[in-house]
Amino acid sequence: MKILPSHHTFPSNSIQTKDQTFPSQLATEEPLEIRLEYWADGEPQRKSVSITMRTPGNDVELATGFLFTEGIISSGKDIKQVRLCGPNVEGQEFQNIVRVELQPTVMVKTDSMDRNFYTTSSCGICGKSSLEALKVHNRFGNNIQNLPISRISQKVLLGLPGYMRTQQQLFHETGGSHASALFDNQGKLLCLREDVGRHNALDKVLGWTLSENCLPLHNHMVVVSGRASFELMQKASMGGIPILAAVGAVSTLALQVAQDLDMTLVGFLNKDRFTVYHDPGRIQHH
Amino acid sequence: MKILPSHHTFPSNSIQTKDQTFPSQLATEEPLEIRLEYWADGEPQRKSVSITMRTPGNDVELATGFLFTEGIISSGKDIKQVRLCGPNVEGQEFQNIVRVELQPTVMVKTDSMDRNFYTTSSCGICGKSSLEALKVHNRFGNNIQNLPISRISQKVLLGLPGYMRTQQQLFHETGGSHASALFDNQGKLLCLREDVGRHNALDKVLGWTLSENCLPLHNHMVVVSGRASFELMQKASMGGIPILAAVGAVSTLALQVAQDLDMTLVGFLNKDRFTVYHDPGRIQHH
Repeated sequence: MKILPSHHTFPSNSIQTKDQTFPSQLATEEPLEIRLEYWADGEPQRKSVSITMRTPGNDVELATGFLFTEGIISSGKDIKQVRLCGPNVEGQEFQNIVRVELQPTVMVKTDSMDRNFYTTSSCGICGKSSLEALKVHNRFGNNIQNLPISRISQKVLLGLPGYMRTQQQLFHETGGSHASALFDNQGKLLCLREDVGRHNALDKVLGWTLSENCLPLHNHMVVVSGRASFELMQKASMGGIPILAAVGAVSTLALQVAQDLDMTLVGFLNKDRFTVYHDPGRIQHH
Repeated sequence: MKILPSHHTFPSNSIQTKDQTFPSQLATEEPLEIRLEYWADGEPQRKSVSITMRTPGNDVELATGFLFTEGIISSGKDIKQVRLCGPNVEGQEFQNIVRVELQPTVMVKTDSMDRNFYTTSSCGICGKSSLEALKVHNRFGNNIQNLPISRISQKVLLGLPGYMRTQQQLFHETGGSHASALFDNQGKLLCLREDVGRHNALDKVLGWTLSENCLPLHNHMVVVSGRASFELMQKASMGGIPILAAVGAVSTLALQVAQDLDMTLVGFLNKDRFTVYHDPGRIQHH
């Protein structure tokens, strides 16, 4: 965050009272480069796999979570070492490069790094091919339909967004960040992360689960502060998480992921109501 | 959009009245691949330059707008032909590949396509280097500080988000899409586009300006339905647009673009108030 050097509120003569509800700080946005070091054909390899605009903080979680949700690593054991590097950004305490060194035993599929594999398919490019690719790469998500049903109560679910908001410190201070939160099926908060990019917030949560070695998350759910897209469903499914609830709307492709992997998908969640778009069986009516 | 096959609203016995305010359709999300055909070293070249999850519709605008805001083309005259291709998506009326063929005279900098050039720099990766790259590639944005000041009245500005919302048909039907709108400095709406991706919505608007041959847009402003990030400021600046107003918050890097290029940056715009983060000189106090 950053204290504003100067800013001007309009209409300037009438708005003082009302305006106290608007935050006076800005969410920090800076690029992060993820560099991968791995072995192929007996030789050490280096590759820049991603540059994302993110809010600094929990960058190791972001990098490892990204590698996991993209299918490049399958557990925390694949990682030998992670370090932040690059020059310190002028006047700031963060660095903008993360180097992730993999264990020599890890086989990296370089084709899945060259571009997002979820949208690459020999049979053409469409939502259906993205779903097929997701299923091929998914270690935990394909088991979701066979799980004993782990239920969350409707009452607990309705309470989650309000509780989550009390924990969104960056949002409280800036009004300019998304959040993703991991809850167990009793509604206990395990991890909440914030970021200017909603995909980054969820990657940070999954990076945390790698470091805690608690995957797959079959008795858990994710709540996201914004909308549910293909990308967020993909990331949740990679962790084997059977329920995703969004405070905002749901896209067609998010729904298709839920249908294909038998995940419970909730939209427009607030303290009074929610809509279940697929598989209401994981929600108890009391 | 898509009519929902089935969905369940909770609490199911008490919410009928309230729930009529929630949309019953989903915003379509599908991948779009942008393929570029150009000449280099006397040979025809083909390259896939982007895959983005987008809402189908105005795909030619999206592709050409993307190429323009990424600095790959500098005007509509660089384009020889654009065509949608790929198999028709099953049961849908849209296709998911756009081929853009450039004029043989256009020199394409392939390094700027391999990864986002705004986040690549020999001096390290940081917001500052992104800004430097933006200035190097910017045909119209670097002139903004030298323009005769084109003002918009405070009263007109306060009216824009409400009017814009009446035009956001996809949002009205789904609650799940962003919008970008181009206005002249009298507050006349020239073009509004909606998409599940906010960057796509603005690329579609800039693609429209290419087809209308009305660049640079020195007497215009852009209003975006969400937050103002580096990416949206970058895209507006590439069109020479001196004012960007966001209904949501502003990030640190968005503010730095405004400061470096002398753009007017407005956040938290609604019918009662707004905050000007940089250069209020383009806004008249009546």
